[in-house]
Amino acid sequence: MEIQAYLRERRELVEAALARLMLSASGPFARHIEAMRYSLFSGGKRLRPILCLAAVDAVDGSEAARQGAMPPACALECIHTYSLIHDDLPAMDDDEFRRGKPTNHTVYGEAEAILAGDGLLTWAFELLSGKATAGLPEQARLAIIQCIARAAGPLGMVGGQSLDMLYQGRDAGYDVLHSIHKSKTGALICAAIEAGAIAAGASREQTRALHDYGAQVGLAFQIVDDLLDLESTMEELGKSVGKDVEAGKLTFPAIFGVETSHIMARDAVGAAQKALADFDEKADPLRALARYIVERRK
Amino acid sequence: MEIQAYLRERRELVEAALARLMLSASGPFARHIEAMRYSLFSGGKRLRPILCLAAVDAVDGSEAARQGAMPPACALECIHTYSLIHDDLPAMDDDEFRRGKPTNHTVYGEAEAILAGDGLLTWAFELLSGKATAGLPEQARLAIIQCIARAAGPLGMVGGQSLDMLYQGRDAGYDVLHSIHKSKTGALICAAIEAGAIAAGASREQTRALHDYGAQVGLAFQIVDDLLDLESTMEELGKSVGKDVEAGKLTFPAIFGVETSHIMARDAVGAAQKALADFDEKADPLRALARYIVERRK
Repeated sequence: MEIQAYLRERRELVEAALARLMLSASGPFARHIEAMRYSLFSGGKRLRPILCLAAVDAVDGSEAARQGAMPPACALECIHTYSLIHDDLPAMDDDEFRRGKPTNHTVYGEAEAILAGDGLLTWAFELLSGKATAGLPEQARLAIIQCIARAAGPLGMVGGQSLDMLYQGRDAGYDVLHSIHKSKTGALICAAIEAGAIAAGASREQTRALHDYGAQVGLAFQIVDDLLDLESTMEELGKSVGKDVEAGKLTFPAIFGVETSHIMARDAVGAAQKALADFDEKADPLRALARYIVERRK
Repeated sequence: MEIQAYLRERRELVEAALARLMLSASGPFARHIEAMRYSLFSGGKRLRPILCLAAVDAVDGSEAARQGAMPPACALECIHTYSLIHDDLPAMDDDEFRRGKPTNHTVYGEAEAILAGDGLLTWAFELLSGKATAGLPEQARLAIIQCIARAAGPLGMVGGQSLDMLYQGRDAGYDVLHSIHKSKTGALICAAIEAGAIAAGASREQTRALHDYGAQVGLAFQIVDDLLDLESTMEELGKSVGKDVEAGKLTFPAIFGVETSHIMARDAVGAAQKALADFDEKADPLRALARYIVERRK
């Protein structure tokens, strides 16, 4: 399959769904919603929603199944966007550019950027529990909320970001690096796959296999992210580069060197492919996405 | 009924449930969880959980019903606590004291305070969708998540805080003040009552009446909060006072004067009592709580 065409088509589906579901910037809270929309509609890769929908396809290739998973897919993107807004804050990574545009706090100020993040996070759960997901069984809706909240919460993404800040400029080994990235990036990517599996009514075996795929893809994604920060240019990446070294962050290339990190990323993607062994060609998009994740340039 | 004894007893129940449900500060994310716990266990009034449980009692006085509503009651307190941590940040109200103790960012730094807030907010939804609420019907669990997310989200508490920041030092009329306080404080107090009603299986009429009660009590609470900031001392309140005037905030006494504000608070409590007209003595705690809200000194 042609991955670029696939990504473009899927990104357009996700953009359309986000545009349809997201609050419009009117009424008394117009400025707040505008700040949320600014970061949500700023040309992200939409990788988490795309992974979620591809997991649905692997289990149940019907259009109805894909439609049912679209609101959870959008909620994942809202949570990812909130995490970027908060990560970029002056008190955190202090970044001025993201996706080639000024960061949220640069445009709306620090207070509103904190609130825009809070708003996106909370709204994701409003979306997950509301009318938009009413077509899914109640048990599945609760399981999806649980899976996403856990992945985004104190033992997942937020905890990982906290650990990342805590270890800046400090020496630590692979176990800490692994904890950071498994939670900070891996958990939400894994939850995207799992939410798709739940929405599509996957069997226990399928769910386990997709979970393994998600864990490996999440790991590969983070290693490549660390490498891109080192090897890419700001024009390619749309955000400041070389920040990890500058901030003394614990990264894969910092611990293992560039060459070994590349090998580790490829190994993780190999393991991800292996996890899909029992799936038929409906999982081909997941297979292609795993390859894309190590080959991407941004 | 003796309100102080009632509040003390209920507060102890809520403290015990929070202590049982909340993550313990161990493992790789120990410091992050410690920061969450620092603010969560800092001697709050636990008013939202207490209101939630009192709404349950008004509908179904059984111990089982109260136990079933305890996790949602605790989730409300986590969300309230997260909002205080973020409100206190230097970029927001820049407060050094809260509940008589240094604010979260004063102790853990700005980055961790942002993340501790994010963690508490996300964990609230983990709690609401997980094992802890498994005793409630699935439909009720989803309805509670929806009600709380909506109240805390961009059209509720977060939106209200954004508006509050936006209008600092600016002249505006009662409609803006009303929007701010209805969303910033009123919405979550109202959601506490509604979540209790849903958990207890209230009828449509009961839910409507309790919603009206919640809206009036939320309004009274905010008016009294504004008055306390003006009339209280830091020793009484446990947080800095006179900050509203200093920051040029839109408050009830600023627009209506102190005397009229007192009358408005009493009127709102009167309307709250009226909304409970069709309830029997099981709603006496709600009635007493409404009176307490205008008479409290902190």
